[in-house]
Amino acid sequence: MEYSKKNFSEWYNEIVELSELTDKRYPIKGMNVWMPYGYDLMKNIDEIIRRRFKEDDFGEVMFPALISKTMFEVEFEHIKGFEKELFWITKGGRESLEDDLAMRPTSEAAMYPMFRLWIRDHSDLPLRVFQIVQVWRYETKHTRPFMRSRDIHFIECHTAHETYDDAEKQLEIYRNQWNYFTHILCIPYLEVERPEWDKFPGAVYTRAFDTIMPSGRTLQIGTIHQYGQNFAKNYEVKFAREDGESDFVYQTTFGMSERLVAAVISIHGDDIGLIIPPYIAPIQVIIVPIPGKEPGLHEYAQSILTKITEFGIRVKMDDRDSYTPGYKYNYWEMKGVPIRVEIGDREITERTITVKKRTAKGRSKVSIDHIEEMKVFLDDVAQTLRERSLKILEDNLNGLKIQQQESQIVTKILCYRKECADAMETETGLTMMGHIINKGKNGKCEVCGNDGRTSLFSRPY
Amino acid sequence: MEYSKKNFSEWYNEIVELSELTDKRYPIKGMNVWMPYGYDLMKNIDEIIRRRFKEDDFGEVMFPALISKTMFEVEFEHIKGFEKELFWITKGGRESLEDDLAMRPTSEAAMYPMFRLWIRDHSDLPLRVFQIVQVWRYETKHTRPFMRSRDIHFIECHTAHETYDDAEKQLEIYRNQWNYFTHILCIPYLEVERPEWDKFPGAVYTRAFDTIMPSGRTLQIGTIHQYGQNFAKNYEVKFAREDGESDFVYQTTFGMSERLVAAVISIHGDDIGLIIPPYIAPIQVIIVPIPGKEPGLHEYAQSILTKITEFGIRVKMDDRDSYTPGYKYNYWEMKGVPIRVEIGDREITERTITVKKRTAKGRSKVSIDHIEEMKVFLDDVAQTLRERSLKILEDNLNGLKIQQQESQIVTKILCYRKECADAMETETGLTMMGHIINKGKNGKCEVCGNDGRTSLFSRPY
Repeated sequence: MEYSKKNFSEWYNEIVELSELTDKRYPIKGMNVWMPYGYDLMKNIDEIIRRRFKEDDFGEVMFPALISKTMFEVEFEHIKGFEKELFWITKGGRESLEDDLAMRPTSEAAMYPMFRLWIRDHSDLPLRVFQIVQVWRYETKHTRPFMRSRDIHFIECHTAHETYDDAEKQLEIYRNQWNYFTHILCIPYLEVERPEWDKFPGAVYTRAFDTIMPSGRTLQIGTIHQYGQNFAKNYEVKFAREDGESDFVYQTTFGMSERLVAAVISIHGDDIGLIIPPYIAPIQVIIVPIPGKEPGLHEYAQSILTKITEFGIRVKMDDRDSYTPGYKYNYWEMKGVPIRVEIGDREITERTITVKKRTAKGRSKVSIDHIEEMKVFLDDVAQTLRERSLKILEDNLNGLKIQQQESQIVTKILCYRKECADAMETETGLTMMGHIINKGKNGKCEVCGNDGRTSLFSRPY
Repeated sequence: MEYSKKNFSEWYNEIVELSELTDKRYPIKGMNVWMPYGYDLMKNIDEIIRRRFKEDDFGEVMFPALISKTMFEVEFEHIKGFEKELFWITKGGRESLEDDLAMRPTSEAAMYPMFRLWIRDHSDLPLRVFQIVQVWRYETKHTRPFMRSRDIHFIECHTAHETYDDAEKQLEIYRNQWNYFTHILCIPYLEVERPEWDKFPGAVYTRAFDTIMPSGRTLQIGTIHQYGQNFAKNYEVKFAREDGESDFVYQTTFGMSERLVAAVISIHGDDIGLIIPPYIAPIQVIIVPIPGKEPGLHEYAQSILTKITEFGIRVKMDDRDSYTPGYKYNYWEMKGVPIRVEIGDREITERTITVKKRTAKGRSKVSIDHIEEMKVFLDDVAQTLRERSLKILEDNLNGLKIQQQESQIVTKILCYRKECADAMETETGLTMMGHIINKGKNGKCEVCGNDGRTSLFSRPY
């Protein structure tokens, strides 16, 4: 790497291409190509999310990518919130369309007209669906791969329930899912209740999952929303209760995106390159054979590859003739492979392998009779990533400046009023992100003295 | 089912919704919602394809969904071939775009400008990528779920090679892949060389995989293309040979789509409903417990579910209280689940299960000590589907009218000239689809007497 992570922006822009996650040279602004290494990483994350949602009784659907102007013409703050970000299709072939079509920026306006048809009575509830799709937003801000793009890989869950309480319980399920996902990604987070003026358009309330990037800025990497009956009333999604009474459903959503990749890259990477958390790594173990005097190197390495594969581990051998072992070490470290296995003369005679973790300096010897230990090494790397990243997040919250040149995170106890937030924004030069639910404490507002809670001020991406 | 498969069109329209594969009520013409059962089926097919492509050294990529007008402004027959089918984005937010954007109808124009950047010399070749994405076509013809829609689930492979021969070898690899895919889908096919005037715009030649639907019409469910240097010349995709000489790459593509689902539904289904080939079935085995006098029904059924799961089989238990076993039998037969397991008093006392194949009338008893036999039953169902569907295809080719009221398939020996094809089209009232490669024979043209080959005439979807 030419760049140090201390200059995070440069480091990030360099590493996403150097490690072949993406190619930014696609000729349309804000739209990049997912390269195989990057897309395999994204798909591994998708698959972890997909499996969990299915276990939790979500059906996977895929809605059309387009939403007509007529469908959007519901008089509703939700629609207004997206107005400036829509790509509009006005022509099919050489004809002008009668009803212009927007590319979905999110799927409420696509799904809820169908929910209206699907839901008749209480036996149809809860309804739980998710989809993993592209969404498009005509971003006018500065774009950056995986962080802010115009063609976004998006994961969205939508549910409908009989009562507000049922919807609240669903949010609790989302929270458990999110804990699991971030455990796998080794990413710490703050659960932040967005202030009234910054919640998702149409929601009763929004809880965002913010993480802290090495620049000291925050990145929103997930959101859960309580919609109450707001959407149901606008889209007329009604159901008959057991007593025959008709009511609107209560709804929730949970959204995540390719920003998960941005967080993984940024939080774990170092000056050498990426460090990919073991359970989502496209390659979990790389074997580098070191040519020496002993015969049978290739066969021995191949037998190790087979053994490791038998434990369900994604392993690859780099047996390219034209590169030295040293070059290969650097290359796969830069690509963030969690575990390297070195095999040379000594390993052949000793019937061992030498194991190097991406997160530690030393090496370990493992007997070929204990290849199952590779799983322990993978767990170790994950645990190290979790501890490191949590420490950085907490140091940031405590006002310590670890990675970034200038901290852009401040916490203050604040009440819920906009005037107090405004005053503190002026004072700090940062944006009020909301009350921190999972790590803050209650107290007196530092502006007005009323009841408040620890609040996050930052410069969000 | 209310409809007999003899009236194929009605049967098809009914079954795709009744079995909850899709919902056609989405408010935009030609765009439907993938319901969980349908999308799980499509994803199972995707996964079989994805795994095979990766084994065969293809990298999975994802390109942006949009292609700018500038990128399309290559003076080339390929572009003209799609002109009438493009959805055009002319506005972002409230602004008019400077460069209009088309939604990809296929990805040549998106990918090859990047191939130009990726390929420098022979060491970059062969280049092999695939993507599984949505494409959009402004269809003016009659739309029908999975057969002709405007929002299409699409699987596309693109390769680049040093020589024409290398590209030909790639086509042979596609053929092997296609054989494997259709073996899993239990779908017979004709490999048909499309005539000069009907090949893919820009290709040197096109080989289509056509199958015969129960209506006696043909459905193109896959295509492989030899592009030669046609695209490379237009997109300036050059490489340096080993001797330093610069040349254009030779390219191929392989395309498949959601039409695979259309073929599976149509070819295997019967008057009862769907029959889904075992290896792509979202549910491979359904367990129906039959309440009786013996205690422990639920526990016994649950233990069977666990045992079957251990063999890696996708199994589900229908223990809904509000429906009778008979209702459940019909329901899951309609949904096309390949194997049903019935468990009642007798099975509990005998320590057995009763197995019913969707493709046969009788039932079999299996001891709980031989649950691995479920795999044999799944194989049996697949084999039956293969044999049945191959016989129908061959009967059709032989002029027998098995399922359809009126055959719309005719084979004639024909040469390669358009005037002979025209003459025969007028005589048969059908369309010349091309020479049949895998099942035809050489002979004399039935119009002019020159050298020719068995050709397919049909009414294609």
